Amino acid sequence: MSDPRYLILADGDFSPMTSKTANSIIRYHPERTVAVLDRQQAGRTVQDVLGFGGAIPVVGSMREGLALGPSDVLIGIAPKGGQLPSEWRAWLGEALDAGCDIWNGLHNFLTDDSTLVAKAKAKGRRLLDLRRPPADLPIASGLAKEVDPLVVLTVGTDCNVGKMTAQLQLTKKLNDRGIRTRFVPTGQTGIMIEGWGIAVDAVVADFIAGAAEWLTLEGSKNADVVLVEGQGSINHPGYSGVTLGLLHGSCPDAMILCHQSTREYIGDYRAAAWLRIPPLTEYVRLYESIGAAVHPTRVIGISLNTYDLSDVEARRACDQAQRETGLPVTDPVRFDPAPLVSAIAEERERYLRRRKAL
Amino acid sequence: MSDPRYLILADGDFSPMTSKTANSIIRYHPERTVAVLDRQQAGRTVQDVLGFGGAIPVVGSMREGLALGPSDVLIGIAPKGGQLPSEWRAWLGEALDAGCDIWNGLHNFLTDDSTLVAKAKAKGRRLLDLRRPPADLPIASGLAKEVDPLVVLTVGTDCNVGKMTAQLQLTKKLNDRGIRTRFVPTGQTGIMIEGWGIAVDAVVADFIAGAAEWLTLEGSKNADVVLVEGQGSINHPGYSGVTLGLLHGSCPDAMILCHQSTREYIGDYRAAAWLRIPPLTEYVRLYESIGAAVHPTRVIGISLNTYDLSDVEARRACDQAQRETGLPVTDPVRFDPAPLVSAIAEERERYLRRRKAL
Repeated sequence: MSDPRYLILADGDFSPMTSKTANSIIRYHPERTVAVLDRQQAGRTVQDVLGFGGAIPVVGSMREGLALGPSDVLIGIAPKGGQLPSEWRAWLGEALDAGCDIWNGLHNFLTDDSTLVAKAKAKGRRLLDLRRPPADLPIASGLAKEVDPLVVLTVGTDCNVGKMTAQLQLTKKLNDRGIRTRFVPTGQTGIMIEGWGIAVDAVVADFIAGAAEWLTLEGSKNADVVLVEGQGSINHPGYSGVTLGLLHGSCPDAMILCHQSTREYIGDYRAAAWLRIPPLTEYVRLYESIGAAVHPTRVIGISLNTYDLSDVEARRACDQAQRETGLPVTDPVRFDPAPLVSAIAEERERYLRRRKAL
Repeated sequence: MSDPRYLILADGDFSPMTSKTANSIIRYHPERTVAVLDRQQAGRTVQDVLGFGGAIPVVGSMREGLALGPSDVLIGIAPKGGQLPSEWRAWLGEALDAGCDIWNGLHNFLTDDSTLVAKAKAKGRRLLDLRRPPADLPIASGLAKEVDPLVVLTVGTDCNVGKMTAQLQLTKKLNDRGIRTRFVPTGQTGIMIEGWGIAVDAVVADFIAGAAEWLTLEGSKNADVVLVEGQGSINHPGYSGVTLGLLHGSCPDAMILCHQSTREYIGDYRAAAWLRIPPLTEYVRLYESIGAAVHPTRVIGISLNTYDLSDVEARRACDQAQRETGLPVTDPVRFDPAPLVSAIAEERERYLRRRKAL
């Protein structure tokens, strides 16, 4: 079976910060991406828009995109609230007509749209609603604290700061060092990249921690280290409930705090917001005290996202965060991830010694 | 239109601590309750089982219950995970045949059961799924911090410690003092009692805070004080995400901490559990620091549930909690709610002065 060929929909919102799902797919599977559809950026290359991704074209219509022969159409933006723009439905119909499967990570499910369902059935194509939660999730009961591997959760100062990207970089490097490491996807983009997982923000609220527990148990099979994808932020006015349910359900032994260096307000990658991002040390205190209320845990490193800084500024940002927190700091995309890889490897040694002593 | 007449289903689980929904309906609407169905307690009165509720009979079969002429059957227990016991479906069918509407607060929706739906339709009766969330909930954006009334949220040391009951008592007393006070139901029992609300534990996880925001705005109309019903606990391994989403979405100006005096472990009203309940001062610290990360707030009083203590022991428990925390303490069901009523009234004065000074 040949590799899939993706046409990524990011109409009106393709940019380094807003089209998070599109950008991550392109970062980890550029060879599978045939084009991005965005009428605003049409005619440019992905490299022009994102600063990576090479010559992949940005097209201005579904017709142009389908002419490039994709096998799948991926919805690559995650608008606030997760609603599907209404004019996209017609495009998705064209894509089904052209023989594509559709990957959807929004809260609005395509399999609830009778027109699309009928068309997909007639064409023998699949509508993949990645945020549709499995039935019969458990209420969390602390099982995740009993798993054998070291569990590391990324936590953030806001949404969309690079929690998933940090972990995908670290997963690769830890495996390169011979430490069997599994990444556990908890959001639609991670699920698209890895092919499994649960979007914990889409489960019924009582089952957030239960979903996190199930994922952690699943990710612990044949692993030395489990890296659980974090979501949101403990002080995000809209999403903090998801963040805390994930923290308490996955029972991490350690956390990596992720931050975008230039961000000043919660959510300001979209619009001016009201809540100023407090110092990193305040986040360390909050995450450690609220996490330890269920399972002992501590922050062992800081992952910075410095995409909009010069190399010199980025290095300075890392140095400053290190002085502030006393913790290892790097931008694992831009610089060597080694400081965080070593922090996790050393934490695993301590963890094994503690368990042996019990 | 005459008052409804409830037959409450609590089979196998009717007791002072486990059948929370049943007990609250009986406490606030005893005149509407014709019987409770529980085969284990059949033949006793509600007074025998709960210590309140008078001569309302406990019956041992749906047939006996229906013979008393109820207009509605209420599902009065909330089993872990919210699943409907399978043998109850047949009973609900009998109830529909007898002309009753069904009130259901579980996560399992009766309107998803085609057999019951068909029967209800044929009989012209209603299946009321109180946990079915409204469509198009918003993502929270901090609107609740702008409302005119003082917003007070109950927070707890665990589930099922008396958060709703405390507030219903306080709502009445505050209104008696001439302070226009509205109770905002956030769970199925509160919705049954008040006739409106959203079960925030049943919404899609991304919308917990949005639901809390909507409820707070709705409750703020024509009110001086809004008492938002709390859910779960900030350190509950299964439900903390709901607790935090509700805290950040409702932006309370003040909190009342609720605790059951004799409880030692999270969830131990059901079974031995692993997480010891920390001191009340630790809860005050956790709730204030995590709450203030979004909107300034503080704990202004402690509500104790002392149902299983003698009067002397209960008084001693209140005195001890007061010494520990330096806050006003009472059991608002057993003793005079005045200490908490005054704490809220005084906080409202301070709140009005602060707003005037701005």
